[in-house]
Amino acid sequence: MIGVDLGGTKIMAGVVAPDNRILGRGKRNTPAKEGGPAILKTMLECIDEALAEAGVARGDVVAAGIGSPGPLDVDAGVILFSANLSVKNYPIGPELSAALGVPVRLQNDVRVGGYGEFMLGAGRGYTDLITAFVGTGIGGCLILNGRIVAGSTNNAGEIGHVVVKAGGPRCGCGSKGCMEAFASKTAMANRLVKAAKKRDCPLGEKILRKGRLKSGDLAQAVRDKDEVAVREVERAAFYLGVGLGGLVNVFGPQVVVIGGGVTQALGQPYLDMVADSARQQIITDPDKTIKFVQATLGDDAGVLGASLFAREMMAQG
Amino acid sequence: MIGVDLGGTKIMAGVVAPDNRILGRGKRNTPAKEGGPAILKTMLECIDEALAEAGVARGDVVAAGIGSPGPLDVDAGVILFSANLSVKNYPIGPELSAALGVPVRLQNDVRVGGYGEFMLGAGRGYTDLITAFVGTGIGGCLILNGRIVAGSTNNAGEIGHVVVKAGGPRCGCGSKGCMEAFASKTAMANRLVKAAKKRDCPLGEKILRKGRLKSGDLAQAVRDKDEVAVREVERAAFYLGVGLGGLVNVFGPQVVVIGGGVTQALGQPYLDMVADSARQQIITDPDKTIKFVQATLGDDAGVLGASLFAREMMAQG
Repeated sequence: MIGVDLGGTKIMAGVVAPDNRILGRGKRNTPAKEGGPAILKTMLECIDEALAEAGVARGDVVAAGIGSPGPLDVDAGVILFSANLSVKNYPIGPELSAALGVPVRLQNDVRVGGYGEFMLGAGRGYTDLITAFVGTGIGGCLILNGRIVAGSTNNAGEIGHVVVKAGGPRCGCGSKGCMEAFASKTAMANRLVKAAKKRDCPLGEKILRKGRLKSGDLAQAVRDKDEVAVREVERAAFYLGVGLGGLVNVFGPQVVVIGGGVTQALGQPYLDMVADSARQQIITDPDKTIKFVQATLGDDAGVLGASLFAREMMAQG
Repeated sequence: MIGVDLGGTKIMAGVVAPDNRILGRGKRNTPAKEGGPAILKTMLECIDEALAEAGVARGDVVAAGIGSPGPLDVDAGVILFSANLSVKNYPIGPELSAALGVPVRLQNDVRVGGYGEFMLGAGRGYTDLITAFVGTGIGGCLILNGRIVAGSTNNAGEIGHVVVKAGGPRCGCGSKGCMEAFASKTAMANRLVKAAKKRDCPLGEKILRKGRLKSGDLAQAVRDKDEVAVREVERAAFYLGVGLGGLVNVFGPQVVVIGGGVTQALGQPYLDMVADSARQQIITDPDKTIKFVQATLGDDAGVLGASLFAREMMAQG
């Protein structure tokens, strides 16, 4: 089974065995400004690299899954629109299917990652989960009774766009005060750059030099006790917890799985801050049975989740 | 089938036919300060009144359902605690069962009302719903794939306690800025009373005289163009919409059903304000297919919902 994680920065492909081991991997930078056909070409190079490492021939591949940013037409395998990929109405599913000669399943990247964590990672053994991925934005995937909640418009899970402070900072979605506008890497970077103009903030200056905030630099600044960065992380964790706590009151999951680049870099201290903030809000769990845990699959969540979707497509015939 | 709606102010009972018509009704004030046995006695009077009106004998009753404030131990039929009812660990289910000689099903009042609207009211024909009841507090019931989302601690649905403005007004739950702290009747009453001390607010003065805010008085004040009351209702509707809009982004229901005393009294203009505010927040419904509708069962939602729970208990054996 092939799993592909199509991101705005990187494309990763994996050859995944029936026991969910990754036998071979391929990785390329995403040609994000060149459109659909260039993405397809690079994706095939990734896949061939993964197949070579695994010692598997193209002809032995049974099916492939792709996790992609959206919005998508999942049934048709079409990326309807993606600003990060410079793509509009591109049938990546059918195109990859034609190139490989096998069925291909396209699915939302966050859902693929959440499903991976549910089946193989930190959510294993539970049936009701909220997964939250904190990176450039904040995405989520809700699983109830062991199934992804897709929603009536197939767009459910947009946890980044619950308002935690009405009238708060403007969000990319057009609204104000969304969780994403406080707790995403983008939100933190914007505030750190502003702070660097007023006071000593080595991290803010680094963002200005590099043009972006890397999660690793954020974690390093916290270790270096960059005061502004430390406070910014605390603030982001607080608002993430406020939003997640409210969602726990509504959905009552067994576990909240928190992943994404920011979480991976900042680790347990960050997770503890998020959980503390959330628990202040939770009124439905007097015995504190609901767990907050870190995602465990890391960068493999996408590849593994995509391969699971491909396998389930084949099982359903 | 008997359905009982046990509220902090009133107890209502109904004899419900297999076609869900209410054949007879009983209604009494709740002896809310006298404890469990007094409540049971009054409940039986209500039931006998309903049976008399329906021309049905006690011996012909098959089962009964009770919708009650909680927290509850649903399986044991016990009200664990209710400040409004002055009750602690009272086995209302087994007690009513012994008195009537039939099985009794106890269930959370908000869930009973939400299930009633889902099966027989505004939510009929849908499978994925958020129901919100706006009264003294704000309760909710989530239905996914035609089933109530109970949550891992059986307390899911506490939509009143999602934060819409972190750091906002103190909520009864101990947190700050919950939807309930902005949009419940209690929240409105508190602000109206404060306002009446500073400027002309006939409604605020009426609340001071009566000691409480009745939904009917709120609606009358809006009709009378009491400016402070009008603005207060707009504010409450705005924050309710902010919270519901965020939940729609996460859950993706087909319909949001809004009920409760406040909604019943204020009607469509209020519903439109809530829906407008919510839609500003919703990013998952570009074609505006998700509906916001008013609950249709009114005061009968509890009695009908409770009778449905009783019937399903019997069907499951």
